[in-house]
Amino acid sequence: MIDSTYPKSFASDNHAGVHPAVLEAMTAANHGDAPAYGGDTWTATFEQRVKDVFGPQAEGFAVLNGAGANMVGLALMLGRYDAIICPDTAHIATHETGATERLLGVKLVTVPTPDGKLRPDDITSRLSVLGEHHQPQPRVVSISQVTELGTCYSPAEIAALAETAHAAGLRLHVDGARLANAAAYLGCGLDEITTAAGVDVFSFGGTKNGALAAEAVVVLAPSLASSVPFLRRQSLQLASKMRFISAQLTALLTDDLWHRNAAHANAMALRLADGLTGIPGITLEHPVESNAVFARLSVQVAKALLDRYLFHFWDESAGVVRWMMAFDTTPDHVDDFLNDIRKAAT
Amino acid sequence: MIDSTYPKSFASDNHAGVHPAVLEAMTAANHGDAPAYGGDTWTATFEQRVKDVFGPQAEGFAVLNGAGANMVGLALMLGRYDAIICPDTAHIATHETGATERLLGVKLVTVPTPDGKLRPDDITSRLSVLGEHHQPQPRVVSISQVTELGTCYSPAEIAALAETAHAAGLRLHVDGARLANAAAYLGCGLDEITTAAGVDVFSFGGTKNGALAAEAVVVLAPSLASSVPFLRRQSLQLASKMRFISAQLTALLTDDLWHRNAAHANAMALRLADGLTGIPGITLEHPVESNAVFARLSVQVAKALLDRYLFHFWDESAGVVRWMMAFDTTPDHVDDFLNDIRKAAT
Amino acid sequence: MIDSTYPKSFASDNHAGVHPAVLEAMTAANHGDAPAYGGDTWTATFEQRVKDVFGPQAEGFAVLNGAGANMVGLALMLGRYDAIICPDTAHIATHETGATERLLGVKLVTVPTPDGKLRPDDITSRLSVLGEHHQPQPRVVSISQVTELGTCYSPAEIAALAETAHAAGLRLHVDGARLANAAAYLGCGLDEITTAAGVDVFSFGGTKNGALAAEAVVVLAPSLASSVPFLRRQSLQLASKMRFISAQLTALLTDDLWHRNAAHANAMALRLADGLTGIPGITLEHPVESNAVFARLSVQVAKALLDRYLFHFWDESAGVVRWMMAFDTTPDHVDDFLNDIRKAAT
Amino acid sequence: MIDSTYPKSFASDNHAGVHPAVLEAMTAANHGDAPAYGGDTWTATFEQRVKDVFGPQAEGFAVLNGAGANMVGLALMLGRYDAIICPDTAHIATHETGATERLLGVKLVTVPTPDGKLRPDDITSRLSVLGEHHQPQPRVVSISQVTELGTCYSPAEIAALAETAHAAGLRLHVDGARLANAAAYLGCGLDEITTAAGVDVFSFGGTKNGALAAEAVVVLAPSLASSVPFLRRQSLQLASKMRFISAQLTALLTDDLWHRNAAHANAMALRLADGLTGIPGITLEHPVESNAVFARLSVQVAKALLDRYLFHFWDESAGVVRWMMAFDTTPDHVDDFLNDIRKAAT
Repeated sequence: MIDSTYPKSFASDNHAGVHPAVLEAMTAANHGDAPAYGGDTWTATFEQRVKDVFGPQAEGFAVLNGAGANMVGLALMLGRYDAIICPDTAHIATHETGATERLLGVKLVTVPTPDGKLRPDDITSRLSVLGEHHQPQPRVVSISQVTELGTCYSPAEIAALAETAHAAGLRLHVDGARLANAAAYLGCGLDEITTAAGVDVFSFGGTKNGALAAEAVVVLAPSLASSVPFLRRQSLQLASKMRFISAQLTALLTDDLWHRNAAHANAMALRLADGLTGIPGITLEHPVESNAVFARLSVQVAKALLDRYLFHFWDESAGVVRWMMAFDTTPDHVDDFLNDIRKAAT
Repeated sequence: MIDSTYPKSFASDNHAGVHPAVLEAMTAANHGDAPAYGGDTWTATFEQRVKDVFGPQAEGFAVLNGAGANMVGLALMLGRYDAIICPDTAHIATHETGATERLLGVKLVTVPTPDGKLRPDDITSRLSVLGEHHQPQPRVVSISQVTELGTCYSPAEIAALAETAHAAGLRLHVDGARLANAAAYLGCGLDEITTAAGVDVFSFGGTKNGALAAEAVVVLAPSLASSVPFLRRQSLQLASKMRFISAQLTALLTDDLWHRNAAHANAMALRLADGLTGIPGITLEHPVESNAVFARLSVQVAKALLDRYLFHFWDESAGVVRWMMAFDTTPDHVDDFLNDIRKAAT
Repeated sequence: MIDSTYPKSFASDNHAGVHPAVLEAMTAANHGDAPAYGGDTWTATFEQRVKDVFGPQAEGFAVLNGAGANMVGLALMLGRYDAIICPDTAHIATHETGATERLLGVKLVTVPTPDGKLRPDDITSRLSVLGEHHQPQPRVVSISQVTELGTCYSPAEIAALAETAHAAGLRLHVDGARLANAAAYLGCGLDEITTAAGVDVFSFGGTKNGALAAEAVVVLAPSLASSVPFLRRQSLQLASKMRFISAQLTALLTDDLWHRNAAHANAMALRLADGLTGIPGITLEHPVESNAVFARLSVQVAKALLDRYLFHFWDESAGVVRWMMAFDTTPDHVDDFLNDIRKAAT
Repeated sequence: MIDSTYPKSFASDNHAGVHPAVLEAMTAANHGDAPAYGGDTWTATFEQRVKDVFGPQAEGFAVLNGAGANMVGLALMLGRYDAIICPDTAHIATHETGATERLLGVKLVTVPTPDGKLRPDDITSRLSVLGEHHQPQPRVVSISQVTELGTCYSPAEIAALAETAHAAGLRLHVDGARLANAAAYLGCGLDEITTAAGVDVFSFGGTKNGALAAEAVVVLAPSLASSVPFLRRQSLQLASKMRFISAQLTALLTDDLWHRNAAHANAMALRLADGLTGIPGITLEHPVESNAVFARLSVQVAKALLDRYLFHFWDESAGVVRWMMAFDTTPDHVDDFLNDIRKAAT
């Protein structure tokens, strides 16, 4: 395990480094020549692993980062005058520098939600524009699993969204930057919240789960996959020395490393949340269903903690902060942090 | 699918793996937490190294691949109704799946050349459209150094292009996916073919020089650099665990590793070219000025070699092939290949 | 005056035909040859008329429709990673089939408002993202005058928005599809709500004011105008036989025809609103400050009226309808409509 | 600036005004209210007229200008990583300010031709990139009928292009800005060079044929037409007072006005070409197959004529000029011009 610097960052799961098993897999791949752009054996192995995990119809494509995985996956399903329905907290709507508008050229129809989760009615209530040529046409529903607020959809909730979307001729996309954390929280297989739930296209995040820089676009809907190689290349998401990207994803999908990393990070979040109980003036803002803890506390206390720790305000005016756990967060990290929170708060 | 270490692939310098020193630098960076998206010390070191090599005004930004470096660099200089003048062999015109048109939305004014190199007159002869509102306006000249035909511009040739471009209000961009090979061939510093020659924005390629996946966009023209962070993020070229990208580039820019790798690959190309002399029916198509050998031979002979070796036809109808050397190509690789070429050709 | 069909449409001011003086001007322009694309005397006259009305720095460009005027005007001020702050009722956000996202590639930051009008605080509260490279950068504030809810900004309100925008480095754009109606309502000159108020770029709508198909993009901010010819051509908004577009706009800007048409339509809206007073179950939804009447009534009554009249529900679930007056709506049209409303409502 | 009716402009067929019958039709349409955006009876008539002329599967959509007709028509058939094969003289490649690249985001694969006409082999020789994910995929072949060099394709030539395109899975698009002139020259029906020849989508130009500003996008391929309303609106090509656009097109399609106008303009071009015979130092550059005469003469003579007449150099360095005839060019116009040419040339 990594020799962490100290104190641990709680700012993001991408402040963590690379899991040793992933780095070993990359090092092992550094052996001789390999065809570029995916024509190598490591990529073939990764593609097979995707089928093993998500089912035989699943086609996996390795890409370089999460925004890239989203843009490639969404581009598959969107034409020139289309719209995406998504929660107003969606990463694609808030943190990708307008890539959806610039690269895809489509409108985001953003829906306010209490918990970052879309409901079937949020879809149906936005479909009255279908057929109106003055309005972009909703064609894709995009949700994040885990959501940006740290909450999770149950398999049934996703299935209900898929059913609603499909009934209206829309597709369901899942931003799975933290899909592993969701499956670990829900205690289910990765396929239960994707393939079995009727998802059309999703991303499977490696980077926040212990990879260096590797995400997958996974296509479940028939006939869409053949466009991915072109869109991936055009979207600047194709690695020439692809074996090193594929090897990372294969490592995570081997011996359930993805699950161990995610379950551990989730457990650390629960440990933190449990420890917050009883600290005066601090409340949980959202249920802890992944590796994120959203807490509300006095801005003064938060700022005092920021002198020593890295983390972000989610909403400074409301005194809401986000504390993220990673695969390498230790119980000591959490306990020390709790001590410092307790001191600052009292 | 071929994945063997032997015989050596001559298909591309990105069939090679990662130089050990680069991988070591990445491994060394895997220590504790680091702020994401570039706020880390490895990135600060890389940025300083860029200034050391290219001059104090140079601002370097690490990105994920060569097409990404080109798109981010070009986007800095192009408005909504602009055009790029470039050779018709330019990678941005031929091998990036229309990213220039799709992502930048601009027209490529492509110029036929005998050797992949633009001349000042190729610029001036395309400027009559300036001010005509029915035509996109040339705003950037883009050249590749090394060119896609393996040839190099001298510092004076680049300076002449810069002068011509600037006199007409255009900018000069260099696709430097193999900039290291050019400097090694020319026996000059990297700055002599960039900063000192009047280049505005260029890419510095790491991947073909021994990195895993790392390129730099370097901005020399004042006032353009502040847009890069936004364009890099929006263009899907920002790594969250940036330290591992920066560490690769720093490794190449340390102790002249870039030069050793490039000079070695260039030397292997010359060794191959020398060895071809006297083999009947094979001629060099372009002067060997980098790590590429373009040869013309009978298609039958080429196909016989393809049974054993990986390489690409450049123009099958003309019997022209491209043979690429990498940092890890050995004299034995070359000599064995020459033996097999000789056998096939006679 | 036009022989109206009967009953009059209250669906839109573009259900009306062309004002006779405009059609006469077009007919008069049909005389011999004229250089295409704006190099004609009718266009020169129009350009001078724009300066006469809006001041010497005003540069006017004739285009073909309102969405085109908006897209060309906005494109002048927006780069690759920018955003527009606008009310969530803005036409550019709701009724242009995603042209803003597709053609401009920028994000719309939409602000809920009670009356379709933006306040300075709506701008300042959305500027915290400035400098954050994960978010598009607000660069333009766009308002509609008249708003889509039929309300108007006072000159002082626009000036306050301009001041707030400029202080933060943003530009102020006005969608003036019904600018004439606003000036007529406010009893001020067209320049008082544009040039004198600090607007940078606006559109001046001709079509809803009695033209056949003619709008103007007017540029007040120095240095932006030179891009218009290129953007207009590229945006498919350049007429080849331009004289016939220019002649329409000149006709409206001659002898205050714009004012007469707008003032008349506004007066008809007031007449309708006054007449609604006392009809049970009908209330005004917004103050009547232009040629639009927004009323709330029972959906059943509205549907009964739709058997005989053309108009649109604005929000069917809320029972809100929009009734539009045109330059050719007569007092009889209004009074007959009022009679029918009264009958349906009682 | 020149605005005289005499001497006649030979610069473009859009220097002419509006044919009286078209203006009368517009005036007649100015009667009472009509639903906006195409829900009017004039538009219904136009749509039926398109079916009468081009066959029952033909769906016609009125738009505002030729570039708009091209962009809407092409957008129907192009995805995110596609390319258009066209002659390098194509208007979409040379005179639409990069709209193809900016609005459609696709690459133009331009083919040099001697006469502005594509041959089947020009298509097949550019298909080797199909399936290569580094290259945009040719999806549409676009030709102009009349070509930009004044030449025409025979029905058989178009059918051969359609067959070749379709066999490879591509669509055939025709820029018919001067389709009427082609049919008049060929002595065939408009349907013989479109529907019967296997064209998928084409534009039918009204403006150069005597309209004020009206073109049609006509869709022949099944299933594509339903996208047009959305793309037309988004592409800024939808007129609100649509009746006045539809009325223009209907006028041209009534009593063969399109044919009379085109045949007359063609005849004037032949008259000019015939008259040039025997004038020393002047040769025809292309066969005269429409309303255009391309002539080669001394630049000095051409410039002398430019003192009195409006026309354009096509290639000044080669001494090639383009002289265009319109529906209102008279034999006297031509004869007077010939006299002046003769004087200048001798």
